[in-house]
Amino acid sequence: MNYFSSDFKLGILGGGQLGKMMLYVTRKFDITTKVIDSSADAPSRIACDEFVQGDILDYDTVLEFGRSVDVLTFEIENVNVDALEKLEDEGKKVFPSSKTLRTIQNKATQKLFYLDQNIPTAPFSRFAYTSEIKTVLENDALKFPFVWKSARFGYDGQGVKVVRKVQDLENLPNVECIAEELIPFKNELSVIVSRNVSGEIKTYPTVEMEFHPEANQVEYVLCPARLPKHITDKAESVALQVSKAFQHVGLLAVEMFLTEEDEILVNEVAPRPHNSGHQSIEGNFTCQFEQHIRAILDLPLGNTESKVASVMVNLVGAENHTGDVVYKNIEQIMAMDGVTPHIYGKKQTRPFRKMGHVTIVDKDINKARAVAQSVKESIKVISK
Amino acid sequence: MNYFSSDFKLGILGGGQLGKMMLYVTRKFDITTKVIDSSADAPSRIACDEFVQGDILDYDTVLEFGRSVDVLTFEIENVNVDALEKLEDEGKKVFPSSKTLRTIQNKATQKLFYLDQNIPTAPFSRFAYTSEIKTVLENDALKFPFVWKSARFGYDGQGVKVVRKVQDLENLPNVECIAEELIPFKNELSVIVSRNVSGEIKTYPTVEMEFHPEANQVEYVLCPARLPKHITDKAESVALQVSKAFQHVGLLAVEMFLTEEDEILVNEVAPRPHNSGHQSIEGNFTCQFEQHIRAILDLPLGNTESKVASVMVNLVGAENHTGDVVYKNIEQIMAMDGVTPHIYGKKQTRPFRKMGHVTIVDKDINKARAVAQSVKESIKVISK
Repeated sequence: MNYFSSDFKLGILGGGQLGKMMLYVTRKFDITTKVIDSSADAPSRIACDEFVQGDILDYDTVLEFGRSVDVLTFEIENVNVDALEKLEDEGKKVFPSSKTLRTIQNKATQKLFYLDQNIPTAPFSRFAYTSEIKTVLENDALKFPFVWKSARFGYDGQGVKVVRKVQDLENLPNVECIAEELIPFKNELSVIVSRNVSGEIKTYPTVEMEFHPEANQVEYVLCPARLPKHITDKAESVALQVSKAFQHVGLLAVEMFLTEEDEILVNEVAPRPHNSGHQSIEGNFTCQFEQHIRAILDLPLGNTESKVASVMVNLVGAENHTGDVVYKNIEQIMAMDGVTPHIYGKKQTRPFRKMGHVTIVDKDINKARAVAQSVKESIKVISK
Repeated sequence: MNYFSSDFKLGILGGGQLGKMMLYVTRKFDITTKVIDSSADAPSRIACDEFVQGDILDYDTVLEFGRSVDVLTFEIENVNVDALEKLEDEGKKVFPSSKTLRTIQNKATQKLFYLDQNIPTAPFSRFAYTSEIKTVLENDALKFPFVWKSARFGYDGQGVKVVRKVQDLENLPNVECIAEELIPFKNELSVIVSRNVSGEIKTYPTVEMEFHPEANQVEYVLCPARLPKHITDKAESVALQVSKAFQHVGLLAVEMFLTEEDEILVNEVAPRPHNSGHQSIEGNFTCQFEQHIRAILDLPLGNTESKVASVMVNLVGAENHTGDVVYKNIEQIMAMDGVTPHIYGKKQTRPFRKMGHVTIVDKDINKARAVAQSVKESIKVISK
């Protein structure tokens, strides 16, 4: 199939910031795109060739959309997977596959998959309802503290809570969930693995993530991780093991914990461009969005190495601010060396909403990290 | 003015490939744009917020368009400059200014400006009509060979011809023109100077251009130029002198000859993102398109240094091919390390038409140049 021809059409489920950044690549390669999102103001509305407003959780909507394109991908896991499976049965190219997505969509299934595949992950118990946890606690079969995770639809730090006492369970939804041992860790790491339809595989360098303590959102991503080579090699090797287990097509972002004993445990994966890879736009020879497009269209994968060191800072809505967004001091951070803001184009801010990110590049990772701190302290995402 | 707000609108005259690449930046910063182009299939049609089909050489069209936006810029010099001047009189922000553009639009005026400003340039004579040249030749006041240049609307190698004998003049249009001494030169160089509204100035590294001998189009651009520092310093100093003379806002691409005596002569300038800066997308900390947007919106200028060495290859339509375009062997070049094709999205190819470009980056400029040669030898822009 000739992708560089207007006869071809790539469909993307979801028109958020990840889709928007994929569209930089499809524009560059002049690949025709069709995007569907439930919001008429979706960041991807502009820059796609065709935009459809619709519910990507609805079976019929996804089926109809999928039938109108040649290759189908998604920028968010929260899509109707039954429709993807039906489309595959009809012979449609869907990447990543419904099988990969189904395993990942449910965190309990994902964790069981790791056990099956001998992939190191934190010990956990699975529950059909949150209410069952109390019974288990009463029988001393589970110890505090642990991490409660909703099995489905966790996103942006929702659906995850550290539970230190019975009372912490009280406001949680009574849904399918897991209780995971709270592992003391030194670092959170991520490795993005790309794999194209033909099976060519390339990994991005291991990155190190620093989390916001309250919001459970990534605050800084550092590429490369400031860790010894034997550790990053181990992380890459575990990520490749996960990739091999899934046999995914496209990107697989593998988030891992580095324990105090230098053990690597897989936390969770995402089968798409990931927040831990945004800095690749400025930092790497091939950015993650281009690599995703290359992979799903079975084009040769690009070089994943870093050109320069990079740090990514998320721009999230400030607390106590809800309404029309203002990026206070954006001009100030643009005066700092190697700083590039990415504004997703969401018109309304609210506390901790992902509104954009800023990449800081420098030949020296420590210098980039210092500038990132200044960026973080300067720019504020507030309401008018 | 808050550019990062949907209340603001940036207008762009021309929707070709340069406008398209500017839109990568406005999308990244979420700056609202309105584009006008005579073609409904213009490469910028997608990715702008609003598209208008119209003739940018028409006074009333440009005036009306300009009145509907907050800041007006252009991606091509061939626009109605009287309308720009009228808009400025009405208080509209037009960058670059009508004054800068008027001087540049006419090559004879541009050359006279260099003389006035003591900017080194090749000796020339000015003619109201090409037919006058013959008279001068008969009087021995002009010597072969020389370069004939149409004063107006030269683009893509049209409007320029090396004249070695009287017969060479025969098929030239009888228009205002100049006859420029043919200077034997070792290299063609370019320096892009950026200057924002407040007068902040940054220059890009000197690049070296290799031209296609027949089509008079750039074939390879190399950044940095493989020349001694004292030469590139001199080129940057001359470029800064030109920038200072124009007091332009936005980019000014200064094309220069390096003579056999290591003298620098200004050939011509373009007040916009330029073919000799395309490789900055992959190669430099801040690409030329972002720098243009920063400059005209009076944002702080970005770092112009190279992250890695880069080479740019133009993708032009192959001879003997006219019609629906096919990019033969594009997958093959994408398998080469550090290679990024940019496809402009023009549906029809014709001989020597600019259809795209390819950037090749590597830490070593000589390695990048070698890969560029392979790219050039592999990919073909042909018709179906």
